[in-house]
Amino acid sequence: MKEENILRYETVALDDEKSALVIVDQTKLPGEVEILRLTCQRDIWEAIYLLKVRGAPAIGVAAAIGVYLAAKAVKADGYDDFCARFKEAKDYLASARPTAVNLSWALDRMERVVLENKGRNADELKTLLRAEAVAVKEEDIWVCKRIGEHGLTLVKDGDGILTHCNAGQLATAKYGTALAPIHLGKERGYTFKVFADETRPLLQGARLSAFELVSDGVDTTVICDNMASQVMKNGWVQAVFVGCDRVAANGDSCNKIGTSGVAVLAKYYGIPFYVCAPTSTIDMTVEKGEDIPIEERPAHEVTEMWYEKRMAPEGVKVYNPAFDFADNELITAIVTEYGIARPPYSESLREIFRRKAEAKRRQA
Amino acid sequence: MKEENILRYETVALDDEKSALVIVDQTKLPGEVEILRLTCQRDIWEAIYLLKVRGAPAIGVAAAIGVYLAAKAVKADGYDDFCARFKEAKDYLASARPTAVNLSWALDRMERVVLENKGRNADELKTLLRAEAVAVKEEDIWVCKRIGEHGLTLVKDGDGILTHCNAGQLATAKYGTALAPIHLGKERGYTFKVFADETRPLLQGARLSAFELVSDGVDTTVICDNMASQVMKNGWVQAVFVGCDRVAANGDSCNKIGTSGVAVLAKYYGIPFYVCAPTSTIDMTVEKGEDIPIEERPAHEVTEMWYEKRMAPEGVKVYNPAFDFADNELITAIVTEYGIARPPYSESLREIFRRKAEAKRRQA
Repeated sequence: MKEENILRYETVALDDEKSALVIVDQTKLPGEVEILRLTCQRDIWEAIYLLKVRGAPAIGVAAAIGVYLAAKAVKADGYDDFCARFKEAKDYLASARPTAVNLSWALDRMERVVLENKGRNADELKTLLRAEAVAVKEEDIWVCKRIGEHGLTLVKDGDGILTHCNAGQLATAKYGTALAPIHLGKERGYTFKVFADETRPLLQGARLSAFELVSDGVDTTVICDNMASQVMKNGWVQAVFVGCDRVAANGDSCNKIGTSGVAVLAKYYGIPFYVCAPTSTIDMTVEKGEDIPIEERPAHEVTEMWYEKRMAPEGVKVYNPAFDFADNELITAIVTEYGIARPPYSESLREIFRRKAEAKRRQA
Repeated sequence: MKEENILRYETVALDDEKSALVIVDQTKLPGEVEILRLTCQRDIWEAIYLLKVRGAPAIGVAAAIGVYLAAKAVKADGYDDFCARFKEAKDYLASARPTAVNLSWALDRMERVVLENKGRNADELKTLLRAEAVAVKEEDIWVCKRIGEHGLTLVKDGDGILTHCNAGQLATAKYGTALAPIHLGKERGYTFKVFADETRPLLQGARLSAFELVSDGVDTTVICDNMASQVMKNGWVQAVFVGCDRVAANGDSCNKIGTSGVAVLAKYYGIPFYVCAPTSTIDMTVEKGEDIPIEERPAHEVTEMWYEKRMAPEGVKVYNPAFDFADNELITAIVTEYGIARPPYSESLREIFRRKAEAKRRQA
């Protein structure tokens, strides 16, 4: 795998020879393209915690590769010992980002390989885990492409599209979720005008979405988050596409802080608001948005990070929630790899999962 | 005038002995409290353009003092010559911020002194202009205090108040407009919990509102602009107070970029949205918000300013409008020094001006 390909085609990769998880350090983009080869579990945990790798699907792929690497290093006395050591590694990685359902989803999936192959020896389990990690990644690429296909049916050539945070190629193995229709559309000759909310406090929109869209030759305009209302009022936006970290069974969609505000604005200005959600991100066991835990992050992200000097006075309090959720009533449709769900979501999301089960049955 | 008093009681002052406009450089707050003594017109123009002095009323006071200082330096041959030189100075300062109606309002008011005193000699005109500049400032303090009084009737002790940008003491001669109810309430023992939107790109909320509120001992929490929705959803906000740069006759209120978004959110969450507007900011000659010119500012404010390094990729476009306006249908009330206007504003704002005229008649 060539270095330059990592960024263009492989946001997250396994270098099995060197027992390394390979990522591009997204906290350094767009100024610096630094490739990290992470071999130690603490570094992998930290890369997830510090958002060096971020975006629900990319985190899932990184976690799958990460826990495979942990398993690979295990020298175990028999199945039970291996199993216990695997569980330790899994719980450790799971603690890095409590809100990201893909993290626990990918880790649970990896664990299932171990649990369903009782009695196998460590070498066999390692081979199976490797295959599963590779599958997690390949399936992610397929999922993103399908989301792109479905999303493209919702817009027309020349449309203005507003997006928040980075649910792009950099957040997945390829294409992205919210940005999949744009990247796929670009491949097919569509011309969109994209407005990227900068997405404070960590500026994933200005740094990452703008970076990958400009790299892909897409007409891209960065705006501060508080300018979205004006851009919509100007009539420049025909659709909003956002990603999500977790969708509840009723359609409430948890995503980067600020998403609920964009959804309220879109509703007010009569602009369709689309959530792009791989089914792995839809959690039918969670009834509604209020049941999703919202992680709060450190104050210094708001007051200091990215700044030359502290820009809020000493003594001031800071509220820094990492996520919020868009109420289902604000969401025009949820775009998944198995089709487009529309309100009422309690019905349509179940239908999506029926289609998924049917597809899996046919595959088997 | 003691240095420390400038900040606490006099955001903008005249040092007549040294022929200087004295301001605190607001672009350096909160890290550094630098007092500027500006004697040259170019420096005064630049201070207004670069937002070293900002906030509609403070700009008005600074312009009045500034144009007085220009007049003071004039060595004219007779009235007509003085008049022409005054006009030049006035037009020059007026060009620094085209959207700020207070700038041209204050300058027009100063010009009226010259025009209404035809035939007087330069020394007499200078004395009259000095008195007018002092009056502009003293009236501003009176106006802000009255807005504070009226605003206080709209909230109760313990309320959560959200504000955007800085329409505070630092934006006026004293008290502020949007923050007047909070500062005045503080004097009277009220306890508010204030949420200050950081207000990208120039961070007036995080830097200035947080600074002056914390200095005043007010419970203040800084949030990124995109967190306002979540704070409102949490039930933490009982009222929004914002300032304004210009109010149209129909109530549409032009203010710092992001204001329209906050107004849409407040409406969605059922929270009253109050615009604090000195009558000098209400422009009955402008029919509606769309007729107010929106200045666009340089891209680097978004991509670079305040950042250690450029945080958006080269080649990306930037849209950086300095203002937007809240539609009148989103505004619960407009708080002026002559009382509180409620919809329909085309009626109630006229009534405010009737009261103002009545008060002026009684004064005369």
